[in-house]
Amino acid sequence: MTKMTIPETQWAQIIEHKGERPVYKQIPVAKPGADEVLVKMRYTGVCHTDLHAMNGDWPLTVKDHLVGGHEGAGVVVAKGSLVQDIEIGDHAGIKWLNGSCLACEFCESSDEPLCPHAQLSGYTVDGTFQQYAIGKAAHVSKLPKDVPLDAIAPILCAGITVYKGLKESGARPGQTVAIVGAGGGLGSLAQQYAKAMGLRVLAIDGGEEKEKMCKELGAETYIDFTKSTDVIADVKAATPGGLGAHAVLLLAVSEKPFQQAVEYVRARGTIVAIGLPAHAFLKAPVFETVVKMVTIKGSYVGNRQDGVEAIEFYERGLIKAPFKVVPLKELPEVFKLMEENKIVGRYVLEIPE
Amino acid sequence: MTKMTIPETQWAQIIEHKGERPVYKQIPVAKPGADEVLVKMRYTGVCHTDLHAMNGDWPLTVKDHLVGGHEGAGVVVAKGSLVQDIEIGDHAGIKWLNGSCLACEFCESSDEPLCPHAQLSGYTVDGTFQQYAIGKAAHVSKLPKDVPLDAIAPILCAGITVYKGLKESGARPGQTVAIVGAGGGLGSLAQQYAKAMGLRVLAIDGGEEKEKMCKELGAETYIDFTKSTDVIADVKAATPGGLGAHAVLLLAVSEKPFQQAVEYVRARGTIVAIGLPAHAFLKAPVFETVVKMVTIKGSYVGNRQDGVEAIEFYERGLIKAPFKVVPLKELPEVFKLMEENKIVGRYVLEIPE
Amino acid sequence: MTKMTIPETQWAQIIEHKGERPVYKQIPVAKPGADEVLVKMRYTGVCHTDLHAMNGDWPLTVKDHLVGGHEGAGVVVAKGSLVQDIEIGDHAGIKWLNGSCLACEFCESSDEPLCPHAQLSGYTVDGTFQQYAIGKAAHVSKLPKDVPLDAIAPILCAGITVYKGLKESGARPGQTVAIVGAGGGLGSLAQQYAKAMGLRVLAIDGGEEKEKMCKELGAETYIDFTKSTDVIADVKAATPGGLGAHAVLLLAVSEKPFQQAVEYVRARGTIVAIGLPAHAFLKAPVFETVVKMVTIKGSYVGNRQDGVEAIEFYERGLIKAPFKVVPLKELPEVFKLMEENKIVGRYVLEIPE
Amino acid sequence: MTKMTIPETQWAQIIEHKGERPVYKQIPVAKPGADEVLVKMRYTGVCHTDLHAMNGDWPLTVKDHLVGGHEGAGVVVAKGSLVQDIEIGDHAGIKWLNGSCLACEFCESSDEPLCPHAQLSGYTVDGTFQQYAIGKAAHVSKLPKDVPLDAIAPILCAGITVYKGLKESGARPGQTVAIVGAGGGLGSLAQQYAKAMGLRVLAIDGGEEKEKMCKELGAETYIDFTKSTDVIADVKAATPGGLGAHAVLLLAVSEKPFQQAVEYVRARGTIVAIGLPAHAFLKAPVFETVVKMVTIKGSYVGNRQDGVEAIEFYERGLIKAPFKVVPLKELPEVFKLMEENKIVGRYVLEIPE
Repeated sequence: MTKMTIPETQWAQIIEHKGERPVYKQIPVAKPGADEVLVKMRYTGVCHTDLHAMNGDWPLTVKDHLVGGHEGAGVVVAKGSLVQDIEIGDHAGIKWLNGSCLACEFCESSDEPLCPHAQLSGYTVDGTFQQYAIGKAAHVSKLPKDVPLDAIAPILCAGITVYKGLKESGARPGQTVAIVGAGGGLGSLAQQYAKAMGLRVLAIDGGEEKEKMCKELGAETYIDFTKSTDVIADVKAATPGGLGAHAVLLLAVSEKPFQQAVEYVRARGTIVAIGLPAHAFLKAPVFETVVKMVTIKGSYVGNRQDGVEAIEFYERGLIKAPFKVVPLKELPEVFKLMEENKIVGRYVLEIPE
Repeated sequence: MTKMTIPETQWAQIIEHKGERPVYKQIPVAKPGADEVLVKMRYTGVCHTDLHAMNGDWPLTVKDHLVGGHEGAGVVVAKGSLVQDIEIGDHAGIKWLNGSCLACEFCESSDEPLCPHAQLSGYTVDGTFQQYAIGKAAHVSKLPKDVPLDAIAPILCAGITVYKGLKESGARPGQTVAIVGAGGGLGSLAQQYAKAMGLRVLAIDGGEEKEKMCKELGAETYIDFTKSTDVIADVKAATPGGLGAHAVLLLAVSEKPFQQAVEYVRARGTIVAIGLPAHAFLKAPVFETVVKMVTIKGSYVGNRQDGVEAIEFYERGLIKAPFKVVPLKELPEVFKLMEENKIVGRYVLEIPE
Repeated sequence: MTKMTIPETQWAQIIEHKGERPVYKQIPVAKPGADEVLVKMRYTGVCHTDLHAMNGDWPLTVKDHLVGGHEGAGVVVAKGSLVQDIEIGDHAGIKWLNGSCLACEFCESSDEPLCPHAQLSGYTVDGTFQQYAIGKAAHVSKLPKDVPLDAIAPILCAGITVYKGLKESGARPGQTVAIVGAGGGLGSLAQQYAKAMGLRVLAIDGGEEKEKMCKELGAETYIDFTKSTDVIADVKAATPGGLGAHAVLLLAVSEKPFQQAVEYVRARGTIVAIGLPAHAFLKAPVFETVVKMVTIKGSYVGNRQDGVEAIEFYERGLIKAPFKVVPLKELPEVFKLMEENKIVGRYVLEIPE
Repeated sequence: MTKMTIPETQWAQIIEHKGERPVYKQIPVAKPGADEVLVKMRYTGVCHTDLHAMNGDWPLTVKDHLVGGHEGAGVVVAKGSLVQDIEIGDHAGIKWLNGSCLACEFCESSDEPLCPHAQLSGYTVDGTFQQYAIGKAAHVSKLPKDVPLDAIAPILCAGITVYKGLKESGARPGQTVAIVGAGGGLGSLAQQYAKAMGLRVLAIDGGEEKEKMCKELGAETYIDFTKSTDVIADVKAATPGGLGAHAVLLLAVSEKPFQQAVEYVRARGTIVAIGLPAHAFLKAPVFETVVKMVTIKGSYVGNRQDGVEAIEFYERGLIKAPFKVVPLKELPEVFKLMEENKIVGRYVLEIPE
């Protein structure tokens, strides 16, 4: 194993047991296995998923003594003996998918997020809320050196996820995608990716502040659900021929917006559900779904190639993600704001050197 | 207009108003427009949709003084001045989609069943329960003369519909499709088409009689939901690697089987809903749908090219559809049996010469 | 048939027999059939194909007493009894594909340009070099009234053709398309469509004037084949990872550029050949084509839906096509310039009222 | 590293330098790296590629002191510390693609055969003509224990390759694929896979013996190019509507059959070139390729998932591959027969225990 000078212990935010708050303390630095790299973290985003992990909301077991975090960017400082494609000193990102078997049918079909043996950063293995994090070499994202490490952090999860959702929608350049929740963190990224992909954006959200932001980001139409008396009619009226949106990106699935989407999506159109609210259900009338031949799809996180592409769009200057930097030790305050729904844009934690 | 000797009046089954029973009586024979053909009907299937039309179950307006029926086969006896591709004397089938504008975006994209101006046989225009029926020339199915007109009738609706659903599922040769309701009329056709398409069939239905039939039709596995204590586990166990079915064809969507399907479909798999039960809903947990990246699709009837293909499979001898022939005038009795769920296979009406 | 006041005779450019020059003279105005419209032409582009038609270069028989032209825009002044989707007074475009059967397997699969019964404007039927031209109603392009009729004319052939080629390439947003002949008439349109579709453009052509133009149109890279000592290496160096272009659009297929394209296209990439030089051949080494899994495709003209989309991109202001207007009677002079390769951009003929 | 008793030395067929004949001698047994397995070979096929490797025909550098062979089946006897998905005692196959980086854009897109760092069995690394062969764990094929190791050997290269070619053709169930060279080793496999995939087979080859074989394998039509006076017309006549074959599989690309294929392939059809003759060229007329929108594709070897699928078709009993077993030491005689074109079916070498 080649390596730089690496301390034996480090600072990290630890959730000792499910449901507890993170504690900021010193823990040992892990050593990379033969197919792994050790990344000195410089910045890491905080995602709503980190809250779900802490609270154990989902039907997936969370690791004990957990270091959360899954959108971290830093510098490779050590690598295992088999690692060839990435060098000490390279910039790298660690994502939700920390590793996968690379040999099951899903991995072999470029669907590694569906690997039954997937390791999830900040969930089933330790993540990026620490100074030195481990990632499988084949899974870390190589980051160009001209990309700032703080700004790219939120792209590594939020950016890739919405980009993937747009790809899954099957919408082609020139077609219209309705983005529900367009004014939120995921939504603002989704609008920019959509535009960069040649799609026409129809933004749906509430309030004038969000309207302003959406129009600046390139939305052709903004529909304010707090003011509209008929969202379905308004969406249709805003699409060519009144036929409805070719695709709908539902960034926070709940029942009413979902059922509306089935109405205003174009015949043959696709509704993509993103996000993992606990206990929520999709519900759609069979008759409409069948006679309009509507497709409803769940989209999870991107695969590795989606990551390459999403980062390339960012590197080309086509994506701006507003974020606010605070030190790693302030993670509990960020969680508090998140629980109170007080966050606009993304919080990024600076990791102490 | 070229034509053969055609009477001025004919026998037909007429539903005078929504909700009434059909009356067998004489009505005038229509004359084909410039882009239409007149087909002397020889046989017509009776479909569950005919009941829905009679009862006005769906949120679509039904024509008054309706001649129902939409899977009829016969001989072209007259054609309009613009009709070039079909000749007097040719065998032809009239399907659910009697005509469409051929010029909207859906028609231009081979999705003529989604045409906003679609004309529906036995629903918005008169159908096949009469001696002489009109069809748009571009929409009638050309039938090879070696295909028996009674046997092909049910293929024109039921056959094409399940074939379309299988295409929409995206399942590739060698993959497994679970067919829910495999032992029914649609199901038995679906199994045969699936097999002819190189798919592996996992049949789900209830009872030993259906088990026997499914296995004869080529199902590799039969799961009896009346006996299974865990349908989800049983389906998974019957698929390679226990990963679940690549696709699910739901031939009669209702809530419980639908939610089960979300569980036993393979990650990245597709659930295709066919059939138009009034007031039914699809319902699926968001979490599972997203992390497994499941696709849920409604599939309506086939387009014209699907029809060509489905008929070709039949002509090659790969599809057998059991049917029972009774005279046109017995339609009310057939409806009665249908309402009592007493029909196995398909009823085909013989039209008097 | 509904109609406006239409004269009995009109001015037209007629090619009496293959190989002769067009003669400007009075001929009768045709009457639309039941499924046709009569369009009062206002402007028509002149395409290189018109030269091929006049000279009979291709292995397809040309009509005698031919009115050429296949990219004309005007106003509907009469329509047949079956025509429903377009009204007198609407703006409409007539394209290369004047009509097709709408009922063969190609038409049913949205490939109407491949219809064995296709009627070609200005080739097998009279085209747009006249005051009143006939088109099949299902095939004329509906033009929004805010689109200028002179500017849209070249989009109706050149624009749609390159847009189709880009779609056929399979290149996805963010991927790189190399355009060979980027500085010509087709090339400048192709660059703009590519950019509007989210593609990254690598322009290949000769000379500094073309370099300037390509960069203004948004090309990220310009490779000057008159200066480059190694076009293959230069293309690869300009693509991410040096892997080559994802797609290549060959706007004027000849042997050397074609063989180069096989070398600089990325593994799994696609080379799309557009244009119909007489007697030319594609030639590629089997070994490279196989081990790189290269796809080589011919792309002809767009189908009707491609036309709708290409016009919509234009209407949104994303496409500019430089053109020069001269009167219809100057067609022979335009042909002369074309034969001398002296045309930059497109010539558009103004039709006398 | 876990392991069974493994000798220090073993028998192998070695080609000391490019162009020399193999020598049967004792060499050391290699030890698997952390991500590798050691497979005790039981049987290995001999492929035409092995001749090309020996002779250095291709523009790819061959390893010195080469152990050839790339379709070997045996038992895992040792594995590296990182290997999880395969166990000592499992049956495994080693294929042409011995390993790839699993982290480049091609590997990430399931195109690992296009990996720039691919390691090729019996070409850039030692292959299967030895008692103990090394394979990357993620690349060896897991073989079900009910599959005989001698019979599966030729599937591992020839079978997967033709299966891949058929997938690449895009032909759908019910469509017609013309197989050129249908009566040869690849051809007989291709016919069986095609049939299992629901395709209709049109076999093209020469002679009555091959006709008999093709018809037994399920070809609907056999065209004997030694007797046909017009292969193009004969192919077209044998396809529905006379429109030509939907796809063509060219198992030995040479110029005349290739140019014929461009003529008899259906408009919008696909020609897939398989096989790597040195110095051969594809050549096609631009005009026909464009106006018929023909696709020409090179298809190399399958990816890992293609391998899983091709083996599954075999396991289901749908594929029979005639083969003849001789001992490993007779490899030089097999090469000799191959050079003399005297081989029908496949030779499989038995490896001494």
